[in-house]
Amino acid sequence: MPRARDLGVTIGRFAPGPLNAITDVPGVRIGHVTLIEGDRTRTGATAILPHGGNLFRDRVSAGFAVLNGFGKFAGSTQVQELGELETPVLLTNTLAVGRAMEALVAHVLALPGNEAVTSINAVVGETNDSGLNDIRAARPTVAEMRQALEAASSGPVEEGAVGAGTGCIAFGLKGGIGTASRRVDGYMLGVLVQANYGGTLRLDGRAAPVTSEADTDGSIVIVMATDAPLCPRNLTRLATRSFAGLARTGSALSNGSGDYALAFATTRGQMPNEMMSPLFEAAIETTEEAILNALLMAGDMRGWDAATRQPRQVRGLRL
Amino acid sequence: MPRARDLGVTIGRFAPGPLNAITDVPGVRIGHVTLIEGDRTRTGATAILPHGGNLFRDRVSAGFAVLNGFGKFAGSTQVQELGELETPVLLTNTLAVGRAMEALVAHVLALPGNEAVTSINAVVGETNDSGLNDIRAARPTVAEMRQALEAASSGPVEEGAVGAGTGCIAFGLKGGIGTASRRVDGYMLGVLVQANYGGTLRLDGRAAPVTSEADTDGSIVIVMATDAPLCPRNLTRLATRSFAGLARTGSALSNGSGDYALAFATTRGQMPNEMMSPLFEAAIETTEEAILNALLMAGDMRGWDAATRQPRQVRGLRL
Amino acid sequence: MPRARDLGVTIGRFAPGPLNAITDVPGVRIGHVTLIEGDRTRTGATAILPHGGNLFRDRVSAGFAVLNGFGKFAGSTQVQELGELETPVLLTNTLAVGRAMEALVAHVLALPGNEAVTSINAVVGETNDSGLNDIRAARPTVAEMRQALEAASSGPVEEGAVGAGTGCIAFGLKGGIGTASRRVDGYMLGVLVQANYGGTLRLDGRAAPVTSEADTDGSIVIVMATDAPLCPRNLTRLATRSFAGLARTGSALSNGSGDYALAFATTRGQMPNEMMSPLFEAAIETTEEAILNALLMAGDMRGWDAATRQPRQVRGLRL
Amino acid sequence: MPRARDLGVTIGRFAPGPLNAITDVPGVRIGHVTLIEGDRTRTGATAILPHGGNLFRDRVSAGFAVLNGFGKFAGSTQVQELGELETPVLLTNTLAVGRAMEALVAHVLALPGNEAVTSINAVVGETNDSGLNDIRAARPTVAEMRQALEAASSGPVEEGAVGAGTGCIAFGLKGGIGTASRRVDGYMLGVLVQANYGGTLRLDGRAAPVTSEADTDGSIVIVMATDAPLCPRNLTRLATRSFAGLARTGSALSNGSGDYALAFATTRGQMPNEMMSPLFEAAIETTEEAILNALLMAGDMRGWDAATRQPRQVRGLRL
Repeated sequence: MPRARDLGVTIGRFAPGPLNAITDVPGVRIGHVTLIEGDRTRTGATAILPHGGNLFRDRVSAGFAVLNGFGKFAGSTQVQELGELETPVLLTNTLAVGRAMEALVAHVLALPGNEAVTSINAVVGETNDSGLNDIRAARPTVAEMRQALEAASSGPVEEGAVGAGTGCIAFGLKGGIGTASRRVDGYMLGVLVQANYGGTLRLDGRAAPVTSEADTDGSIVIVMATDAPLCPRNLTRLATRSFAGLARTGSALSNGSGDYALAFATTRGQMPNEMMSPLFEAAIETTEEAILNALLMAGDMRGWDAATRQPRQVRGLRL
Repeated sequence: MPRARDLGVTIGRFAPGPLNAITDVPGVRIGHVTLIEGDRTRTGATAILPHGGNLFRDRVSAGFAVLNGFGKFAGSTQVQELGELETPVLLTNTLAVGRAMEALVAHVLALPGNEAVTSINAVVGETNDSGLNDIRAARPTVAEMRQALEAASSGPVEEGAVGAGTGCIAFGLKGGIGTASRRVDGYMLGVLVQANYGGTLRLDGRAAPVTSEADTDGSIVIVMATDAPLCPRNLTRLATRSFAGLARTGSALSNGSGDYALAFATTRGQMPNEMMSPLFEAAIETTEEAILNALLMAGDMRGWDAATRQPRQVRGLRL
Repeated sequence: MPRARDLGVTIGRFAPGPLNAITDVPGVRIGHVTLIEGDRTRTGATAILPHGGNLFRDRVSAGFAVLNGFGKFAGSTQVQELGELETPVLLTNTLAVGRAMEALVAHVLALPGNEAVTSINAVVGETNDSGLNDIRAARPTVAEMRQALEAASSGPVEEGAVGAGTGCIAFGLKGGIGTASRRVDGYMLGVLVQANYGGTLRLDGRAAPVTSEADTDGSIVIVMATDAPLCPRNLTRLATRSFAGLARTGSALSNGSGDYALAFATTRGQMPNEMMSPLFEAAIETTEEAILNALLMAGDMRGWDAATRQPRQVRGLRL
Repeated sequence: MPRARDLGVTIGRFAPGPLNAITDVPGVRIGHVTLIEGDRTRTGATAILPHGGNLFRDRVSAGFAVLNGFGKFAGSTQVQELGELETPVLLTNTLAVGRAMEALVAHVLALPGNEAVTSINAVVGETNDSGLNDIRAARPTVAEMRQALEAASSGPVEEGAVGAGTGCIAFGLKGGIGTASRRVDGYMLGVLVQANYGGTLRLDGRAAPVTSEADTDGSIVIVMATDAPLCPRNLTRLATRSFAGLARTGSALSNGSGDYALAFATTRGQMPNEMMSPLFEAAIETTEEAILNALLMAGDMRGWDAATRQPRQVRGLRL
């Protein structure tokens, strides 16, 4: 399946990194666990690791932003207060946040050097995959969440109906995980999204399939990484810009949408405010492209609608 | 000069009100003072009155949102705390906010029935018109600000290079005041913008003039009115949605951008969260159309660049 | 053990309710699970139920405030966005938040009428009991958390080293759960605290035991209930006032302190801003007294310090 | 008149600086304009300058916090967004904020080197002195505000009924300007308050005069300076702690109270979170002592109540 850029959909004015993925930011690792079982299980988890070391001891600066807070994002108040990330980020489904926290706590407690650790701020994002997944059935388990952490690697990132995107629906079409990157003033900026929301799709000027007005609900979690030396305040500002990329795809920003963005920097430092504008602009276009990649890289899927308790077929976007 | 809709640019899926203006919301009044004098004065003020009565005694619920806070918006903390508006809103230029507050204080003190008033929360928004106006020259005066309040009327709203939009530049083109409205579930939603920002213009899929990368700075103030019975919390959520309309026009959301939105309801009540989605979606498209109207209704202008201290010519958007 | 008022320590000017407890607010139920096992387990959970019905279907308005966000409070963004509580509140220890969320999700899924529920915002507060408890040992379990929910009842509230307060330390003394209430303008206001923080204790003018400067760290979660008809915005303002009660006890508000307050109203409505001041004042004094009750109702305890991996003895406050 | 410490009221555990004033922070300058004229004019302005240079070009990091936002504090959104102060801070009365902004804009425009400046974020705090002052009479004028800026000097700070404190009332007693400082880990922390609020006075355990329950309204602005190298995020956290000092004096935090805190650092840098706790604790006690100084240094005053339009006598606190 082709990505947006393969189809000639080129968003914005900055050039992507070599993989056009969040892993273009040196050190960043992504891990998926994908659960497709029987007629009803279409879910998973995606882990984002800022680096391969002991993050609890070697923390990264972070910022957090909420556009619409109908969601269960865990760990936000401490990220906002202290401006740092001390665990990897796990993305999963709405009813699995507690198990994801358990997995992150267990992961940190088990790392060599953490024998005296007694406080851990697990960071977990979620979207609701109940349109294709039997979300009430308590999957992924804690052990499956840990597999996503252990599977994390640098290099190309699998997109579409994988990991935490396995059961996602966006614009009434199959959604999921997407990623993109940009090179800006010598720094790298990468975005990974879990796209599960609705609205009226805009494809940068191209005709998009018309989906029904009922497909306006849902959520998105946006994770942004950079090696630019940003303080937590400017990371928060950077995270905020991702919502403009979301808006440009035609999001309806409905009452039931949970729209969250987390940004972290793998380099310590304090880039001055006056140098932020190119990164801000790149954050918008990278998010927009990551979302289009999520849609384009997800194929048709048959699953189970947990609310109606009926099978459901969702098709993937084809241009 | 034609508005967006006259040119076949139809944004979104809801129908506009009869004037396609913020004054479609019953009671809302708009007043402009436009100052175009000599080579250097290109500024003004725009007043938004939620109703024609004594607003200090008959307040309206209000919400407030900031996307990027590089700006001098006055009165925000009290609007956020108390959820209400007790003065009209004045829009003007960056260095005139103090004088606008003076005008609002004098206006409220002078109203019959306010003889014992000793505390007034003046609400003022601004953008920087120094690209065409000698902003250091202390215009509008307090008296000129009061003229905008006194000139306020219902009916059609003058757009483009008028009032607080007189000296605005957007996307390197002439910006200014724009407005639009939508009918949603039997309620009216209206938006008025003071558009003075930059980025890469998107015209809902149409080819837009390419402006330079240097034209990414600037600000916007968005004022939203509705007769839907919204509490301050849902008005804040509504105001937040306007930033999606801003994003869709191609805003770069640069470091120096001051992006503010204020929403008020002329009817008291508490519409439940579950009914908000159509209003949210309409807030996005109404803002986008109001911005396009601001650009399309502003003609070419010759003025004076206060930073370079040189004359400057800015052309209007023509499709 | 006597409560503050039994010792003649009378905080503030309003009269308490009949139980001087959060359960004076009609409908409110409290449940504890207390785990004291062997040398190392000193932990537990406390459940707060706004009423005895199906809260997911019959929600209550809620507000949330953070003084210092070093903590793992779950569910905050949705409470802030929607202004409501759809699950009971669970308090527990820092590393047990994920399990508490699991318990709340299971609790809601299992309620009659919730068969089609696919999204649940579990609300969980925590403080760190690792000074007396082997916090790394993963207690309470999910099943134990559910026992706290099932044990919830109206009537007198057990205080001190019970439930989520079992392993708490405050001001270097034994801390724990405390509660108090006030009657204000015909309404009832109740507070329950999980007190686990430090500073220099102030006892409303009385001499307090001097504890060491090292005892300044830790956290508090404050839960406030009222039958006054408050909107979420005024509940947030009410929650904010509880921090003044915290301050009056001598809290050091250290970097590592997680200070959170949640307020809910069992009655729908919109009391006007102008009527809030007595409730605000009562929120301060009720919180202060609830904290003193937590200290006074907790006896000496011997447990295990998870950081130093040594036994530890902490004595209770005696006047 | 004796200050708190002269009377043996010693707040907290840190030692004050040589002047026990905000000017103990090197570079900080304070200027007052005091207007006591005829029967009705009891107002003024107080200027706080972080240093004696061109602040617009040599900015200081800053943070801002709101406890209750019923007030007209100007400049807050930009301080929060950019984390810096580019003008001095002016304190004055509620209806004079616009004129104070005008004075700050004129002050910055006039400084050598600022000839091309076209955007200025004036920072102004206020409390309502209408209990003793004819606040509707538009004093201080813009010119009088500028005198406060020009009068600013290092050295001892005049307290009580001076500058912006001239017409203040606190706890039903004469309030006004107070200051204090602390030395913490080799750094200096200074606080200046404009105390104009109410509640039930607490004097660190001493008996305080009982004032009426009607004296619970009003506001406070707290300005904090330090030479510790704090980033804006930690300055915001520091500012937040000042509210605990306010609470300890017995503030009622009523609906009508505007409680604002601004903190700035004269040294650039990023002290780590882990080193903040002593500064946080000092911020609490310095604020409490500054407030007591404001009360103790203000004598009896006869003025004019603008709401009742009657003369009014307010006595000063005497222990």
